[in-house]
Amino acid sequence: MNLLLISNSTNAGEQYLQYPIKNIASFLEGVTEVVFVPYAAVTFSYAAYEAKVQARFSEIGIKVRSVHRSKNPRKMIREAQAICVGGGNTFALTKKMQEQGLMTAILRKIKEGTPYVGWSAGSNVTCPTICTTNDMPIVQPESFKAIGAVKFQINPHYLDANPEGHAGETREQRIQEYIEANPRRWVVGLREGCMLHLHDGKMELIGSRPMRIFKKGVETFEVNAGDDLSFLL
Amino acid sequence: MNLLLISNSTNAGEQYLQYPIKNIASFLEGVTEVVFVPYAAVTFSYAAYEAKVQARFSEIGIKVRSVHRSKNPRKMIREAQAICVGGGNTFALTKKMQEQGLMTAILRKIKEGTPYVGWSAGSNVTCPTICTTNDMPIVQPESFKAIGAVKFQINPHYLDANPEGHAGETREQRIQEYIEANPRRWVVGLREGCMLHLHDGKMELIGSRPMRIFKKGVETFEVNAGDDLSFLL
Repeated sequence: MNLLLISNSTNAGEQYLQYPIKNIASFLEGVTEVVFVPYAAVTFSYAAYEAKVQARFSEIGIKVRSVHRSKNPRKMIREAQAICVGGGNTFALTKKMQEQGLMTAILRKIKEGTPYVGWSAGSNVTCPTICTTNDMPIVQPESFKAIGAVKFQINPHYLDANPEGHAGETREQRIQEYIEANPRRWVVGLREGCMLHLHDGKMELIGSRPMRIFKKGVETFEVNAGDDLSFLL
Repeated sequence: MNLLLISNSTNAGEQYLQYPIKNIASFLEGVTEVVFVPYAAVTFSYAAYEAKVQARFSEIGIKVRSVHRSKNPRKMIREAQAICVGGGNTFALTKKMQEQGLMTAILRKIKEGTPYVGWSAGSNVTCPTICTTNDMPIVQPESFKAIGAVKFQINPHYLDANPEGHAGETREQRIQEYIEANPRRWVVGLREGCMLHLHDGKMELIGSRPMRIFKKGVETFEVNAGDDLSFLL
């Protein structure tokens, strides 16, 4: 499998997909067209989402074709050179992907080696479940099961602190609850500006910030770019 | 119905249930025992949760009896002087309440006038759904439907800003997604330190901070303590 799983589309103060576009370009070398899944968009249209991604992908010479334009999205997935799933609301994304049978279709396709790029919600759905999303459950999907391309759970946009004076749970506390309820599963807290590159059975962390690792019964620790991540595979 | 729906148990830097205990005391005047639902607890035991709440409620002379000790939690609810549902993880709470039939049992009971106190997740579950929770979906409940004692959705721990430099969605953006997907529903962003008191068909906001109001097609606005909230009922 060839996966590029990005924490966030956009760093604070930067333009959309600005920081990861070089990594996407090198990951998708030779690809001329990606099939795009826009269903995480809620407050703007799928067409607008496709156009926004196309604007950035044009810089690297790649055409973006969104599945929402097709009467047969599964067929588009089956015939894709590469698959790209964008961020937004994970529940909205999951609901529509399940309704259209895209979870299974994508898993089958990426098992054949087709490259997959996801960011934020698009990274979350490659996990066994969407249970480590940060998003609000604005709609109810059929289930919390996702693609299951990797065996661990990603928490994208991982952040360390609450705003000062705020008493709600920290992200770490939320993930501690997850591992208490799901003791067999590894969770990776992928900080903004970082991504995971999985290629031919190896995985590496890309980015200048460490990734935080959680599992029930294991003391929480951090890994850096270059560290061995084989324990997650 | 008599409801006291509190945003958060504890303000930053304060002790557990310190700030709302006076309001709880006056709301539960005459009550000697509450039936407590502890199922939002994930990283600590239900017994520990009961003890923690009992420690604070002892100050106001009220005994706390947790439903987890009973083979028939619905019967405890039916016979309760008052019901109290604590915060924690909304998905864990919802799953267990649904499994034990407590959503329906509590709705029936509070319709008869039995006082209900909730904080955080315990406030969320009085809404039609849990779709405006901030919590991580660590377990999958039967559905997102909740008690439905009120017609609007509460977002507890409402906060205005992200930590500096963080690019994830703000709370406002998340709620904008919710109202886009659920255009008929009012959402109230209940800031920390605030609560809603619903009594005999009237509702008031208690607290020194305004509450933020969202509905599809309505410009987002704020209300203060003393303002008319009848539009929500």
